[in-house]
Amino acid sequence: MNVFQSKLEKYAETVLKVGVNLQPGQDFLIDAPLETVEFTRVLVKKAYEAGAKYVHVEWQDDKITRSRFEQARDNSFDYYPSWLAGMWERFVENDGAVLSIMAPNPDLTEGISTTLISRATKAMAMKRDSYLQAIRNNKISWCIISAPTKAWSDKVFSDLPENERMVAMWEAILQFNRIEEVSPTIAWADHIHQLKNRIEFLNQKQYRKLYYTAPGTDLTVELPVGHVWLGGNDKNEKGVQFVGNMPTEEVFTMPKRTGVNGTVRSTMPLNISGQLINQFSFTFENGKIVAHEAAEGMEHLSALLNTDEGSRYLGEIALVPHDSPISKLNRVFYNTLIDENASCHLAIGGCYPTNLVNGSKLSDEELISCGGNKSLIHIDFMIGSADLDVDGELHDGTREAILRKGNWVF
Amino acid sequence: MNVFQSKLEKYAETVLKVGVNLQPGQDFLIDAPLETVEFTRVLVKKAYEAGAKYVHVEWQDDKITRSRFEQARDNSFDYYPSWLAGMWERFVENDGAVLSIMAPNPDLTEGISTTLISRATKAMAMKRDSYLQAIRNNKISWCIISAPTKAWSDKVFSDLPENERMVAMWEAILQFNRIEEVSPTIAWADHIHQLKNRIEFLNQKQYRKLYYTAPGTDLTVELPVGHVWLGGNDKNEKGVQFVGNMPTEEVFTMPKRTGVNGTVRSTMPLNISGQLINQFSFTFENGKIVAHEAAEGMEHLSALLNTDEGSRYLGEIALVPHDSPISKLNRVFYNTLIDENASCHLAIGGCYPTNLVNGSKLSDEELISCGGNKSLIHIDFMIGSADLDVDGELHDGTREAILRKGNWVF
Repeated sequence: MNVFQSKLEKYAETVLKVGVNLQPGQDFLIDAPLETVEFTRVLVKKAYEAGAKYVHVEWQDDKITRSRFEQARDNSFDYYPSWLAGMWERFVENDGAVLSIMAPNPDLTEGISTTLISRATKAMAMKRDSYLQAIRNNKISWCIISAPTKAWSDKVFSDLPENERMVAMWEAILQFNRIEEVSPTIAWADHIHQLKNRIEFLNQKQYRKLYYTAPGTDLTVELPVGHVWLGGNDKNEKGVQFVGNMPTEEVFTMPKRTGVNGTVRSTMPLNISGQLINQFSFTFENGKIVAHEAAEGMEHLSALLNTDEGSRYLGEIALVPHDSPISKLNRVFYNTLIDENASCHLAIGGCYPTNLVNGSKLSDEELISCGGNKSLIHIDFMIGSADLDVDGELHDGTREAILRKGNWVF
Repeated sequence: MNVFQSKLEKYAETVLKVGVNLQPGQDFLIDAPLETVEFTRVLVKKAYEAGAKYVHVEWQDDKITRSRFEQARDNSFDYYPSWLAGMWERFVENDGAVLSIMAPNPDLTEGISTTLISRATKAMAMKRDSYLQAIRNNKISWCIISAPTKAWSDKVFSDLPENERMVAMWEAILQFNRIEEVSPTIAWADHIHQLKNRIEFLNQKQYRKLYYTAPGTDLTVELPVGHVWLGGNDKNEKGVQFVGNMPTEEVFTMPKRTGVNGTVRSTMPLNISGQLINQFSFTFENGKIVAHEAAEGMEHLSALLNTDEGSRYLGEIALVPHDSPISKLNRVFYNTLIDENASCHLAIGGCYPTNLVNGSKLSDEELISCGGNKSLIHIDFMIGSADLDVDGELHDGTREAILRKGNWVF
């Protein structure tokens, strides 16, 4: 076995142990792009070695996805099959573990009508809502990771010679996932421990409000009573710990749905369904986005905000220091999974009920009345930079620094 | 578009029109090996052009299939996930059309324990029984076709230089599927018409018994009252015509479960789950296989026969002239879909209820009492040759020639 192959095996083992934390006897579902077939086969092999009862791969193919937008008739686009959505729901009922490999193709939907894409995205989100809610509530263990594809590597490493780009992407992914450490498992345990310390600190503070200031940004975010900061790892319904995102550098909670006011400017482009949105900003009044701008992708941004009532409200706020390992690479990955861990970010759309004490047990109405947000979408966007300051306001009105020049103060 | 690409498109169009006969607004499910990705993408494109509402590809990967047998723990092998089987059942309820691409890998399970394979095959067949029954009863339109893969082409065309084998396989497939004709659709209509004439003739005869004689074969097969010869195309529950096998050269019916006596010898090897069984014979008493022999794969053959009660009885008898287009290629394809259309064959295991008048409406008990057979398996094996004679016995006891030296007499 060559060095690279042994690194792939180490990555697969870490994903299975630290990420999904696959338990013997569980079914295991991998959602993977066709192009990642070599690494996916390593994952399957390692999953069976770890005692998986049955491994199923749901393969995605960009060309087939695009074929639908190019050839299908109009009645296809408000539709997503129940028989397909149902498989995922029943997989959750069966208490499996699920892994998604994200390798965005930034040019996937170039030239395709924004309306078609948002209709198809919405139809899918509606039919898969029950599955996605189960994931947001950590009913089962889940994990999202990355693996290189040609189109994605070409986009991110366009400054390198073509034959070096996939290698560079693998190096980056292995590095910021701590696979180059002697024991990735121990390195991850240390890392999670540090995140947990910050989370404990923030949960004890129970800030009433956060103030964000940066060039183009002047935003006040109220936090709901009983908000919970999370990060690093989670527990599923059975009490099994897992890490939902690899890499993960963020700590996050939910804002109060109606408590966001002011303006915020993005600091990184956003790649949604293969469409790029760049240099955009939002203005909030009592939580609602009442104005938005974008230097690029304005039409697609408007379509996103019009998805449903909740898509104009925030569902998540996350703090990531500007000196995080990914941030130091100083590269846009056009992949939320990675970019969000290089930068403070917010998300429009649905909240994670687990960011509220007992939130998973609340009905939709109760969740909203406690300050949570409901939406078919959940889209992270980056606002971190070396110029970002964040203050917290305690319940007695005292205001104290949390981030200065993008980094933790305490 | 080059010549080869345009032939692929013609093949895809013929499969969609003649094979599954996809209707506008239907969902379409393709079961395909990863290796056939290029042709599968053409199928998807053509399906959307033909009005498919949603196309989903369930990809199969030989390496992943093999990985399970190599790495999984023992509790995996009597198991098949309900959440996965359920998807196919609900697809049928939703009235979609399904296409399977068969490209057997003759070495897929080399060195794997026969017991493991038959346990896994049985577990899958049990969980998928409801889906498979729906297919056997033509509840929805279905079609099985072939496309070349490297492993399969290497096996079948091992006498050619390595770089010519996939091309040769494509040429064979396109030829015996009539894609080289000016209008494959018209060529298929003519061919189906000829098969229907034979079927009408045989159905009017209502032979009481068939007598098979050839070297190593001396077999009497009773046919049940109300047996129906089928072939060429079928109608689904909605009355839409489709062709379940491409190619198809056979006419077939069911034997009377307890009415088979004598000995029959195979004339081609059988490739089951990647395991080869060669030069085998069966001895029947009152329908039941009471003795069997095989020069190669004896262990696997025994395991097959031990699947369940019904796996020792015949479920289908099919007549194919020895001068059929595939037979003339004089080549073993190690693929039942093709080989069965080059040769008279029988099948051990479950019958097709449609081979009996009103058979689809019978309960399992009623079907068996009318002469049908039930089993989790249905395995065709070839008995045709230039030495095979088949006689039919009419209800008045008259005996007349049907096949002589492998070919139709009338």
